[in-house]
Amino acid sequence: MKVKPVRAEIKVIAFDFYGTLVDLTAIAQACAVITPDADAFCATWRAKQLEYTFWLSLMNRYEDFDRVTEAALNFTLNHHGVKVDAAQRDVLMNAWSKPVAYSEVGPALSELAKKYELVVLSNGSTRMLERGLAHLGLETYFRRVLSADSVRVYKPAPSVYRLVLEHCPASKTEVLFVSSNNFDVIGAANFGFQVCRVDRAHLPLDPLGIEPDLIVADLRELVELLVRR
Amino acid sequence: MKVKPVRAEIKVIAFDFYGTLVDLTAIAQACAVITPDADAFCATWRAKQLEYTFWLSLMNRYEDFDRVTEAALNFTLNHHGVKVDAAQRDVLMNAWSKPVAYSEVGPALSELAKKYELVVLSNGSTRMLERGLAHLGLETYFRRVLSADSVRVYKPAPSVYRLVLEHCPASKTEVLFVSSNNFDVIGAANFGFQVCRVDRAHLPLDPLGIEPDLIVADLRELVELLVRR
Repeated sequence: MKVKPVRAEIKVIAFDFYGTLVDLTAIAQACAVITPDADAFCATWRAKQLEYTFWLSLMNRYEDFDRVTEAALNFTLNHHGVKVDAAQRDVLMNAWSKPVAYSEVGPALSELAKKYELVVLSNGSTRMLERGLAHLGLETYFRRVLSADSVRVYKPAPSVYRLVLEHCPASKTEVLFVSSNNFDVIGAANFGFQVCRVDRAHLPLDPLGIEPDLIVADLRELVELLVRR
Repeated sequence: MKVKPVRAEIKVIAFDFYGTLVDLTAIAQACAVITPDADAFCATWRAKQLEYTFWLSLMNRYEDFDRVTEAALNFTLNHHGVKVDAAQRDVLMNAWSKPVAYSEVGPALSELAKKYELVVLSNGSTRMLERGLAHLGLETYFRRVLSADSVRVYKPAPSVYRLVLEHCPASKTEVLFVSSNNFDVIGAANFGFQVCRVDRAHLPLDPLGIEPDLIVADLRELVELLVRR
């Protein structure tokens, strides 16, 4: 756990979704049905999914996250020499809409929601996010579900983070943004939010000179800091 | 070799530098001095170097390619658990300014320069590119060396490709852009250039629905198509 002095009272906590609330190793488990090399397959799929969001955003050419995810799947199948039928493809794609949350997420959100306005801010399409949250039974904790879809560009573009300010009664520094994804931690801190990095795997942050305010190992630690202190 | 009908007479040929003219396996050879796992080390370094150009560009936060390359090196050293002293660090960083060209590049540029205006358009900083071209002895073939540095954003942002139009007497479709990097092939085609993909490793292009006009295995094939036909 690492804590910088708090810069302003927190009014809104905005959560990234995939990798932060949702455990992407469950996606790898779905991949195990079609390849013995599921971890490597899933790693390529996720890397390409993110890479395409970066490329398309820089090209001013938006495709929604479902389409990006399917394009990344197509590359990955080709790259790993795996063939799938239509039913197997559906299983793989549906893994993103029927996600698995990390075990501490539900109890932690329940605590945090008593004190703060919680929102989701994700690259996922609104459809994927709403289906995913309903599947997890977590939708009641969130006042709003904000998708990059509505600005047709992906994180870490500032206009995605600005969605929180457009929909919530808070200034930049009154928002605590929570993410496990390094580009997102750095992008949100660059935008001016207070940022909590959830460092579940104990990996280094990319050394671009942009640091989060808090680092926690999981959301339990965030509850300790914000609710129980 | 794949060829679409030519859309307009080509007046200018713009070349990407790293990976297209310059053989990045020579960078891996420099890495072999500090780690037995040089190919994996170099692959991480290159992937992070590109990733940081994407992140920073999307964040509207520019750092030049030397600094991006060094930040990516720092991540890679940490990630692979490798320690270097100042002299070893210099050797690694200098590999980018003292590059090795693919063997057919010099003769091919010599042929193409007789018929076309040739330029370099690279993410590399002007300093890296000028040192690199002088080291290779290829600077005489290029009318201009254009760097993303001058627009403070990286490919595949349209403003980088636009540099060619701002500095050369040609319209979009009169420019043939040549690259081995998939994001760059797709970015240049999205911008509206005619594009030649140099597919040295016979790997699939990312399936984003944006295709090059030509695919060649090396620059010899491009000479065949444009000069000797």
